[in-house]
Amino acid sequence: MVQFPWGKAWLAGVRILAPILGLLMAFSAAAGDIVIGTTATFHSAKLNEDRTYQVMLPASYERSPNRTYPVVYVLDGETQFQHTAADAAFLAADGQIPEVIVVGIVSTVRIRDFTQTDWAEAWEGGGGAARFRSFLADEFLPHIASTYRVSPYRALSGHSAGGQFALYVLTEDPALFQGIIAISPSLDWDHRVPLRTLQESIPKRRDIKNFVYFASSDDSGDALKDDQTLAAILKGAASKGIRSIYRPHPQETHTGVALPAQADALRQLFAGYVVPDAVVSKGVANVEAYYARLSSTLGMKISVPASVRNALAFDALHAGRKKEAFAMLHAIIADDPNSPEAFDSLSEAYQSEDSLTEALEASRHARSLADKYDHDNLAYYDRQLARVLRKQKVTDGGK
Amino acid sequence: MVQFPWGKAWLAGVRILAPILGLLMAFSAAAGDIVIGTTATFHSAKLNEDRTYQVMLPASYERSPNRTYPVVYVLDGETQFQHTAADAAFLAADGQIPEVIVVGIVSTVRIRDFTQTDWAEAWEGGGGAARFRSFLADEFLPHIASTYRVSPYRALSGHSAGGQFALYVLTEDPALFQGIIAISPSLDWDHRVPLRTLQESIPKRRDIKNFVYFASSDDSGDALKDDQTLAAILKGAASKGIRSIYRPHPQETHTGVALPAQADALRQLFAGYVVPDAVVSKGVANVEAYYARLSSTLGMKISVPASVRNALAFDALHAGRKKEAFAMLHAIIADDPNSPEAFDSLSEAYQSEDSLTEALEASRHARSLADKYDHDNLAYYDRQLARVLRKQKVTDGGK
Repeated sequence: MVQFPWGKAWLAGVRILAPILGLLMAFSAAAGDIVIGTTATFHSAKLNEDRTYQVMLPASYERSPNRTYPVVYVLDGETQFQHTAADAAFLAADGQIPEVIVVGIVSTVRIRDFTQTDWAEAWEGGGGAARFRSFLADEFLPHIASTYRVSPYRALSGHSAGGQFALYVLTEDPALFQGIIAISPSLDWDHRVPLRTLQESIPKRRDIKNFVYFASSDDSGDALKDDQTLAAILKGAASKGIRSIYRPHPQETHTGVALPAQADALRQLFAGYVVPDAVVSKGVANVEAYYARLSSTLGMKISVPASVRNALAFDALHAGRKKEAFAMLHAIIADDPNSPEAFDSLSEAYQSEDSLTEALEASRHARSLADKYDHDNLAYYDRQLARVLRKQKVTDGGK
Repeated sequence: MVQFPWGKAWLAGVRILAPILGLLMAFSAAAGDIVIGTTATFHSAKLNEDRTYQVMLPASYERSPNRTYPVVYVLDGETQFQHTAADAAFLAADGQIPEVIVVGIVSTVRIRDFTQTDWAEAWEGGGGAARFRSFLADEFLPHIASTYRVSPYRALSGHSAGGQFALYVLTEDPALFQGIIAISPSLDWDHRVPLRTLQESIPKRRDIKNFVYFASSDDSGDALKDDQTLAAILKGAASKGIRSIYRPHPQETHTGVALPAQADALRQLFAGYVVPDAVVSKGVANVEAYYARLSSTLGMKISVPASVRNALAFDALHAGRKKEAFAMLHAIIADDPNSPEAFDSLSEAYQSEDSLTEALEASRHARSLADKYDHDNLAYYDRQLARVLRKQKVTDGGK
């Protein structure tokens, strides 16, 4: 139950899903465009050019004006943004990761920006990594932070040369991104400069924590050896504050690996976000301690997810601790007062008590919030409301 | 090289990607919405209600007015459309699958529509599968076929109760969809009616071919036994025209499995689409025979992908068979006359011959097509054009 947020209607033994309530990014119910985000341009003085970027805001963003969100930055946004954004939305709706903002950075001259050196053997001039890092640190990240409600946690995901750049940032400015995702990084650039730089930088690390996700593809020969070297370097850096995961994907090509690896990386960034049932069954204090420990491990504040608090409230309700249960449900609402899910849940609780007047009020409010904030599944709230009205009618008829 | 379409700039030994040319769904380069598709409503007389659906058209759709595309229909579009659409676009851009149209069907009362029987133990009335199948067969699929350029190949993807419905269609109307994707289907509905119906229907199958992709999640006990029963039934039906793949995902939850399974299913629907290098190296006739065999296996016409034809053309060019190479490049253009990739490729070939006047003309046309059809990476075509102009200048200067 805990793994499926708000899954009140999840019936043990019957593997039929209730409508997934924490739904994906908004689309209009009327004929029209399906919009998953916005794109904008930003003039960079450092790069002396306009840069296009893409932003996906999480489902609760509009209705939660005081909430901040971690940001996952994705290089090569022209190819990597949309699947990353869709995956992040699905995983958040499914309660596997917290809601995040996804920002894609569209490439212009990617080899120029992503490489540390101007390798003569390459077909395009390199060596702009320092300048591109400065663009991120001094211009672009501040721009995003001033435009959107961001929490302090940032991750950077890069593929191929983009992965090379992500590793460069890890060595040059490890505080810039707590999370580093390097998917099939081009380790052989200029006689393995990424590996050499990383090896040199690790002994100098002081009081800084990073998580590094590294995925490789169908490499062989020297490329495979480079992958193994990187995995070993990262593993050996555990005492220097680098938590890492290496995922070989020998069945994936260099380009194709980005699809499964990005989804996997998003989950690993927030590994532990799904609290084990055994912890939930021990009650609220245990759950809070669990997320406090997790926050320390991941290097970001992770509050107890509303779906988990909701599950705890229903556990209390079913155990007959009604006062506690309703207090918890009202606390969820206090923290997220425009959440249709929270009011729908409150209505369920009232219905289980046969408090149909209160249930009706809660369902009406859930429905109006779903309408106001363009919830993907307004029809669900209509049906829930109709159900309460039917129950009330039956009760009134029986009087 | 073959696995990366149009990957002319792919340098052996240097794992840096050239910009991925076959790019993902269009987004505007100016500030604005990122649109991945459209949504519309359709009034169903059979269901006596309006139904909302979502459509993602492939990247080449607008520029290729005579081309038709396979359609992948996705149930529970409110949760499953966006990641499926993003995955399909990525996989097609990467040359792993052909371009497809993805159509999502947003659920209203999903248990009503997806189940064969009105199981008294369920929390919501079922039994509408026959009516929903009729809605698809008699109303919705004809509507899509009359609205978009569709090829005869159709697949249906369903998760949970949606997977149950997909299996129902396989038994009741196997010609409706050649491809059936059942992700963690709810096999236990009404004392395993999906399994029983399937077992009864298989002996009656005549002269019909289907491909079935079945993925399971972290089931245990009876649910796991049901999964194994389904896998065995499908495997045993190979002689009855059912080609099937069973993919257990024991580490995924019932809801979470939809993300990796959908991406995997898309690849399996078109398994073999990526021609092995060994076949390409044997030349055009071998490649054509390969795709003819594949078409027969998959039950759909698969032409030699343009990216593969392009690779063959460059193989011919590098082998000194210039006339053949240019004939092949012009044939690609004849089949897809508005393709910026094809003209960019032609320019590369001319450049390799130092035919800079022809190269310039081809690059100019590639750039204008990229602009006209809102290519995701216009900047790439600008740079390619600038490169040819630079080369010409150097040549002129040397005269």
